[in-house]
Amino acid sequence: MKTVGTFEEAQELAVGSVGLVPTMGFLHEGHLSLIDAASDDNDCVVVSLFVNPLQFNEPSDLAAYPRDIDRDTALARSAGADVLFVPDVETMYPIEPRTNVVVRGVSEGMEGTHRPGHFVGVATVVAKLLAGLQPGNAYFGRKDAQQLAVVRTMTVDLSLPVQIHGMSTVRESDGLAVASRNVRIAKHERPSAVGLSQALFAAGDAFEAGERSGGVLREIVMTKLGTVPMVDIEYVEVARARDASIVDRVGETAFIGLAARIGGVRLIDNVFLDPETERADRGVQLDGPSILYGEF
Amino acid sequence: MKTVGTFEEAQELAVGSVGLVPTMGFLHEGHLSLIDAASDDNDCVVVSLFVNPLQFNEPSDLAAYPRDIDRDTALARSAGADVLFVPDVETMYPIEPRTNVVVRGVSEGMEGTHRPGHFVGVATVVAKLLAGLQPGNAYFGRKDAQQLAVVRTMTVDLSLPVQIHGMSTVRESDGLAVASRNVRIAKHERPSAVGLSQALFAAGDAFEAGERSGGVLREIVMTKLGTVPMVDIEYVEVARARDASIVDRVGETAFIGLAARIGGVRLIDNVFLDPETERADRGVQLDGPSILYGEF
Repeated sequence: MKTVGTFEEAQELAVGSVGLVPTMGFLHEGHLSLIDAASDDNDCVVVSLFVNPLQFNEPSDLAAYPRDIDRDTALARSAGADVLFVPDVETMYPIEPRTNVVVRGVSEGMEGTHRPGHFVGVATVVAKLLAGLQPGNAYFGRKDAQQLAVVRTMTVDLSLPVQIHGMSTVRESDGLAVASRNVRIAKHERPSAVGLSQALFAAGDAFEAGERSGGVLREIVMTKLGTVPMVDIEYVEVARARDASIVDRVGETAFIGLAARIGGVRLIDNVFLDPETERADRGVQLDGPSILYGEF
Repeated sequence: MKTVGTFEEAQELAVGSVGLVPTMGFLHEGHLSLIDAASDDNDCVVVSLFVNPLQFNEPSDLAAYPRDIDRDTALARSAGADVLFVPDVETMYPIEPRTNVVVRGVSEGMEGTHRPGHFVGVATVVAKLLAGLQPGNAYFGRKDAQQLAVVRTMTVDLSLPVQIHGMSTVRESDGLAVASRNVRIAKHERPSAVGLSQALFAAGDAFEAGERSGGVLREIVMTKLGTVPMVDIEYVEVARARDASIVDRVGETAFIGLAARIGGVRLIDNVFLDPETERADRGVQLDGPSILYGEF
């Protein structure tokens, strides 16, 4: 694996079919599953690592974002990355950036409501990575379901010649969706955090038992969450996977998603619902604690 | 030359270094000079022809836009194009487009003020053509000076691996900048239309004589225009070429540009001012009437 800092260097090393895994670093099993999928599909796997200032709406969030390049380098290499693309801010923004990629509709509601401007930052930096690195495939987690819809829509709208792959959520052995911020959850709050995934799983069970009403599925989650202490719910919604629009009935692939604050930590999670296979994608559960909790 | 309708077909034919000339069709010597420059620099010249509904703010403008594919095909071929890319609306917009590429600042003022939404349409469709066709070079006319600044900024901001070339304006033998809408200028209004370029040339003369004040250069144009009948001026501005910001002094390459209505026809024109060479780029004057006025 080679670490490079410019688009030109990355392009030079990226031969054959190229799979891109865009990350903001501090890798965990969720990212590693994307790198793994990219390795299966492509000759060359490029992992990008850039903490994009544009997609943080709170400066304190940006400052607090964990960074450890040595750790990420070792993890990316061991997972099968061929190129680690770590641009500095000057490479990404040689001039004061003035261009916003705005995905109307898909960016609105849910995360769009609670993190104003977030998806403009995401869509703009992903467009930039896709335009500058020209991968044939790019890999994103289903955990960020609305982001996945934003990215899919953007790539079609801009005719970017890339296939977007949405991969199943990776979970801790207790069900909590793996996210780097999980380490900030206090021990006594952990059962509440786990309660989020349990509530979504209950909706997944109902879906697999035939329930298709968005309202009923949402109600199942709300009722479950009502029994979980210390949870401050931001939203619970059933939305169509391809454009993140709220739906009354699950007629095509959808997700039931939520955001909630537990203590000072904002968590999101979802379960994908596929009416064709009649299966809920609850993600993949790890056997033991993720690498966020110790040596790797 | 081959005519194709999809990005995939165009990509397949575009081998070696690729130069793109994006057009809305109804080609004239301005476009042909871009195709000519592209032929000099590249192995393969792709001319795109798409009347983009998104960049018309008035539906009547879109409906009135002249279309003649047989004429354009013959002209593109004779000018040296290798591929004519003529996508239909379904190819360009397979799903209802939701993505806007917004170039803040550069898109504001001048054309941005008088044609609201215009540059969002332009930036979005150009981003799409550049992302989907992946040319190494793309050619635009200096006549649309602000558009050129918008496109340059957008390509840097999105890391599109393309070099943008701004080519000199082509003019009728009387000085009027060639534009397809010129055919709608009534005979008795023609001297007024020519008066626009004469006013800009006067500012160009002053610039070459050493004048660097934006205010003075602007005043020269305004004074000249004061003597031209039937001119309804929208703006006269001196702006920096790279970001279209209004300047008090010409310290780096700038343009003095204007928009005016003569009868029912809206015309724009400009002269580029380069303080390094101390020359004004008045464009290239044709010997006789352009192909817009008769057989070609």
